[in-house]
Amino acid sequence: MSQTYQAQIYVTLRPSVLDPAGTAVQSGLQQLGFTGVAGVRIGKYVELTVTAETEAEARQQVDQMCDRLLANPTIENYRFEVQALTEGVAA
Amino acid sequence: MSQTYQAQIYVTLRPSVLDPAGTAVQSGLQQLGFTGVAGVRIGKYVELTVTAETEAEARQQVDQMCDRLLANPTIENYRFEVQALTEGVAA
Repeated sequence: MSQTYQAQIYVTLRPSVLDPAGTAVQSGLQQLGFTGVAGVRIGKYVELTVTAETEAEARQQVDQMCDRLLANPTIENYRFEVQALTEGVAA
Repeated sequence: MSQTYQAQIYVTLRPSVLDPAGTAVQSGLQQLGFTGVAGVRIGKYVELTVTAETEAEARQQVDQMCDRLLANPTIENYRFEVQALTEGVAA
């Protein structure tokens, strides 16, 4: 029986890749008076639901989504969490 | 003694706000064959470090950063985690 899973996906630039947006935000924060801030890196956070037979299948699907569309594996890393959504499913 | 803290910040659109980018990504995923995907919402994920005297002070700083620059409180929610970075600090 298929089940709905909630996925939370984090896409981040690889550490070796420059992050101009992060640098700009860091500069902005410092100008606002947050002088102790450093190492600002900006990534994407994606939430979605997916239906699958098992949690393993849901994880495999999300991994493929990241690899094929959500992240650019050349310059980005990704990681994700998958949880079954609790639903009142009649037997 | 001041200490460096690592913050992980998640900025998401409020549920009542339309997310055209999420809709476009969902459509793209479905065209790639992921027909069971739904509810795609795209947010921002920010990593940074901040120096502060205590973890409470670090949390307060990050909360202010979110409120003043990183998130738009009118249309976005945010949440964050803060951990002390383990360093070899001489007494």
